[in-house]
Amino acid sequence: MIKNNSNDKKNKNNYNYTLRPISKSLEKMLFKPLKVLDKGFIRVVDYMGNDDSIVQAARVSYGKGTKKKSQDEGLIRYLLRHRHTTPFEMCEIKLHVKLPIFIARQWIRHRTANINEYSARYSILEDEFYIPKTRNLAMQSSTNKQGREGEINLQLAKKIINILKEDSKRCYDNYTWMLNEKNGNKFDDSRSSLSRELARINLTLNTYTEWYWKVDLHNFMHFLALRADKHSQYEIRAYAEILLKILKSWVPITFRAFCSYRLNSAEISQEALVVIKKLIKGGKVKFNDTNLSKREWDELNLLIS
Amino acid sequence: MIKNNSNDKKNKNNYNYTLRPISKSLEKMLFKPLKVLDKGFIRVVDYMGNDDSIVQAARVSYGKGTKKKSQDEGLIRYLLRHRHTTPFEMCEIKLHVKLPIFIARQWIRHRTANINEYSARYSILEDEFYIPKTRNLAMQSSTNKQGREGEINLQLAKKIINILKEDSKRCYDNYTWMLNEKNGNKFDDSRSSLSRELARINLTLNTYTEWYWKVDLHNFMHFLALRADKHSQYEIRAYAEILLKILKSWVPITFRAFCSYRLNSAEISQEALVVIKKLIKGGKVKFNDTNLSKREWDELNLLIS
Amino acid sequence: MIKNNSNDKKNKNNYNYTLRPISKSLEKMLFKPLKVLDKGFIRVVDYMGNDDSIVQAARVSYGKGTKKKSQDEGLIRYLLRHRHTTPFEMCEIKLHVKLPIFIARQWIRHRTANINEYSARYSILEDEFYIPKTRNLAMQSSTNKQGREGEINLQLAKKIINILKEDSKRCYDNYTWMLNEKNGNKFDDSRSSLSRELARINLTLNTYTEWYWKVDLHNFMHFLALRADKHSQYEIRAYAEILLKILKSWVPITFRAFCSYRLNSAEISQEALVVIKKLIKGGKVKFNDTNLSKREWDELNLLIS
Amino acid sequence: MIKNNSNDKKNKNNYNYTLRPISKSLEKMLFKPLKVLDKGFIRVVDYMGNDDSIVQAARVSYGKGTKKKSQDEGLIRYLLRHRHTTPFEMCEIKLHVKLPIFIARQWIRHRTANINEYSARYSILEDEFYIPKTRNLAMQSSTNKQGREGEINLQLAKKIINILKEDSKRCYDNYTWMLNEKNGNKFDDSRSSLSRELARINLTLNTYTEWYWKVDLHNFMHFLALRADKHSQYEIRAYAEILLKILKSWVPITFRAFCSYRLNSAEISQEALVVIKKLIKGGKVKFNDTNLSKREWDELNLLIS
Repeated sequence: MIKNNSNDKKNKNNYNYTLRPISKSLEKMLFKPLKVLDKGFIRVVDYMGNDDSIVQAARVSYGKGTKKKSQDEGLIRYLLRHRHTTPFEMCEIKLHVKLPIFIARQWIRHRTANINEYSARYSILEDEFYIPKTRNLAMQSSTNKQGREGEINLQLAKKIINILKEDSKRCYDNYTWMLNEKNGNKFDDSRSSLSRELARINLTLNTYTEWYWKVDLHNFMHFLALRADKHSQYEIRAYAEILLKILKSWVPITFRAFCSYRLNSAEISQEALVVIKKLIKGGKVKFNDTNLSKREWDELNLLIS
Repeated sequence: MIKNNSNDKKNKNNYNYTLRPISKSLEKMLFKPLKVLDKGFIRVVDYMGNDDSIVQAARVSYGKGTKKKSQDEGLIRYLLRHRHTTPFEMCEIKLHVKLPIFIARQWIRHRTANINEYSARYSILEDEFYIPKTRNLAMQSSTNKQGREGEINLQLAKKIINILKEDSKRCYDNYTWMLNEKNGNKFDDSRSSLSRELARINLTLNTYTEWYWKVDLHNFMHFLALRADKHSQYEIRAYAEILLKILKSWVPITFRAFCSYRLNSAEISQEALVVIKKLIKGGKVKFNDTNLSKREWDELNLLIS
Repeated sequence: MIKNNSNDKKNKNNYNYTLRPISKSLEKMLFKPLKVLDKGFIRVVDYMGNDDSIVQAARVSYGKGTKKKSQDEGLIRYLLRHRHTTPFEMCEIKLHVKLPIFIARQWIRHRTANINEYSARYSILEDEFYIPKTRNLAMQSSTNKQGREGEINLQLAKKIINILKEDSKRCYDNYTWMLNEKNGNKFDDSRSSLSRELARINLTLNTYTEWYWKVDLHNFMHFLALRADKHSQYEIRAYAEILLKILKSWVPITFRAFCSYRLNSAEISQEALVVIKKLIKGGKVKFNDTNLSKREWDELNLLIS
Repeated sequence: MIKNNSNDKKNKNNYNYTLRPISKSLEKMLFKPLKVLDKGFIRVVDYMGNDDSIVQAARVSYGKGTKKKSQDEGLIRYLLRHRHTTPFEMCEIKLHVKLPIFIARQWIRHRTANINEYSARYSILEDEFYIPKTRNLAMQSSTNKQGREGEINLQLAKKIINILKEDSKRCYDNYTWMLNEKNGNKFDDSRSSLSRELARINLTLNTYTEWYWKVDLHNFMHFLALRADKHSQYEIRAYAEILLKILKSWVPITFRAFCSYRLNSAEISQEALVVIKKLIKGGKVKFNDTNLSKREWDELNLLIS
């Protein structure tokens, strides 16, 4: 969709010298599109800082410089554990993302980031739509209103896929017809072209868009903690999985700390702590003995089993 | 779409006593939907502060209390003129807005606000779509890539309206078919229902959604300065027009200052200032004598003619 | 310091009618200064929303209205437990705070808030300084570089108090001398007055300042979670204690949930979870069997004992 | 103050290869302290992006890549003129700044930035204070309450300088005495040391602190537009002057556009526009014929003379 990225191409082939800190493993990923879903991708296009930058920013507070590696890892883990988040804000990453509009709508709820999106007021969108694989066509969950569970039988799934494909295509074809333009040519010279900002309203929410997204490391991890979570929608989780890989390449020490203290950690309520203490002392605890709701009780049992 | 607003109903009929500052004219608008476009609306559901609150916040800085009315207006105008924006942040407004998704996507680019949107992961959207009036179906502008200009002839316009109506409806019908649910009833008990978070991806961008939007007065005016501007898309301007009325009711003194210093003001570049000075001294200035681009030259001539 | 708050006085005595939701218990606190430290205070000067507003905002997402009380509490607890933070952003509070400058410097690190501070460029600060009580004059902690522990013996404490008093006073006296002004009168008509913006640089960090601080409920709780914590400095914790009382009056249901899930909860790392599971199963766990740092091991033992 | 910046030293001597865009002229400034006031400095420690990055981000919106230089400059000027600010948010800069506390208090009012400050809870501040030069010791302005004007006579100025020096020094000496520590040694082994977080409250507001400050280019320019303005305090303007030099090195095209459309531009109110139009048409305009306040009238006359 984005043409003539001569700048990218130039960058892709030309190494520059810099005095700035670099992340060697992230340099290797730069500008390469990492595939997501059927037609989406994530490309790292720029970054600032690395694990050392976090340590250094933290040590400004302490009036100290860097130390040896093992101490650096200890410090990063300490910062993340105690939610001293400002040193992580000292790193920044910029991504080029291609994603369906319904995902873009979830993504943009994270406000502490910078965005430049492809404008369908200005330019014409291409005919690319997210069509789920049949195995991802799950049923509405009966217990979780905003979830899905259980596969749909193949015959029905195929029918649904067909609907999605046909509706996307018809809407798109009508979009270009109203624009009176396809691939730069007019359908019909004798009639008017509807303005782009209006024609686009006929497109479906699975149409792909693109944007540049820039975010600091603290907010990047906050995004991941929410979007790599099993409660988030499968399609945005697919993006989060790739973002986790990027995080690991960029700041490997921070990544390990993130797994320990965010991704795989648990927050225990005051009431659940009481239960855990009793259990550790060898006591038996029944639901009625606790101040937990049924839902919290189930969650706790799942957690400690 | 939002049912059982028993809370609203309760509020609508029950006056409470409060010691907080109030805005008498805004109280009269509370909870009443103001129509926008064909099916949208804006409802004021809460607010904090009034013109006096701005004055009071400014006078914290000066260590002084409130004075007489004329001085208050002078102070508010001074603050807005000199971009002393923090006192305006001391007021807050909360709106319930019903708007098409493509407008919601522009609106949410204003990040300094709080939002709760109707969730189509959780609930089923209603069959309401924005269908422009034929007189608003403008052609693609030839000079401004993101603009429209000139009406489309009636015959073509009707055809376009038909396309928009039919595509929206077909996509919506397929949405409910995939959900296997309409008005709370199943189409067919024997088959699975596609999860809501997936079925919605078949909807078109003109489908209406709803949200609560809360913003402080400074950011409210910033939104208006951009969205009430003639360069913004007609459909979001229709919302901005209503927001201007709300601003006027809420904080009438600030509204007048906003018209003087933001809405109807002009920013003159260093190079354009040189031209203006020459003109005032009675000199003749030709384009080639200036350091302006052709576009700026045209804009300047439009401004001062 | 802030004189002639005629607006406040007017409000203090005049009830208004409003259709907006109110918080009855918070209304009773409005405008009344709650004492903090030796000369500081917190006054609630405005607010928006109550517990119901959170429920209502959440139910916009679900397309539902309010329900009965018990379900409302369940929903608020659910939202806070799962960090669905946006509905809490729908409430707002505005405070007038008098606090020493060194505390103001910590406080302002919370960026998502609106502030108007008394300006010592514009006005003259009063001679009010924070002087700790002798029992709060703790020694530098030997284990925690940013902490204090153990009282200082009375004789030394008195000496320190004297130093703080004398230095504050001398700096202040020189401040007014340089300003050539005290209580609105000139010291000496025959000499120049140093500008206020310069003279103030001679003041000590324990000088009191004042500001209006406006914040949404989500960020208010985030502030409290950090500043009511035992690791924060005693002097800012004194403010946090009063803020907790305000929170309880304003949104009592949310306050209870906040205690359960934030204030008295614990975040357990992936590695600590492994230990807890073993302990619950009745196993013995030694430090060397774990992947915890010594510090985390100690913290965990403290937590579950 | 910040010791052992081995990381910086390492960076200062070691060029790395990178695929990221660089700014050649800014690379030359990296890590070098630029002196401000008597003991302050600004050091660029990292950056992301350059003029090309802005163009590229803007062209994501248009679905186009980069073009030739002259068009790039045109685009950047267009973006800044029309306040299309998001592409400028795609660049980021990180600075190490040493500045007096009273300046830090103004600086931090710009909330959209990331900060790590030297912590006087954790570490001991050095004995460095801002002492103005006698020629900068201006009198309180009689017309502008937050300004200064006119020099103070030399004799009085010297007296004031002496006060500032002595008070800073005495407060600092008492600080170290209470800490019972100087240059890492105890004054007296037999007595307690007051905690650092308390002892610091005795320091004066002209004491120097340090921080890392990271900000995106849009907010960097917003900071400059306010702080390089003649109404801002001389001492923070001294920092803004250096920041302007950094801006010029980093993104020279953007710098020129910033001068045209922000730094040296003027905002003309609706009422002032009416006057300007009349003047251009050769009319005479008196104050009483306008809707301007006296102050605006004076400002306008200053602007166009």
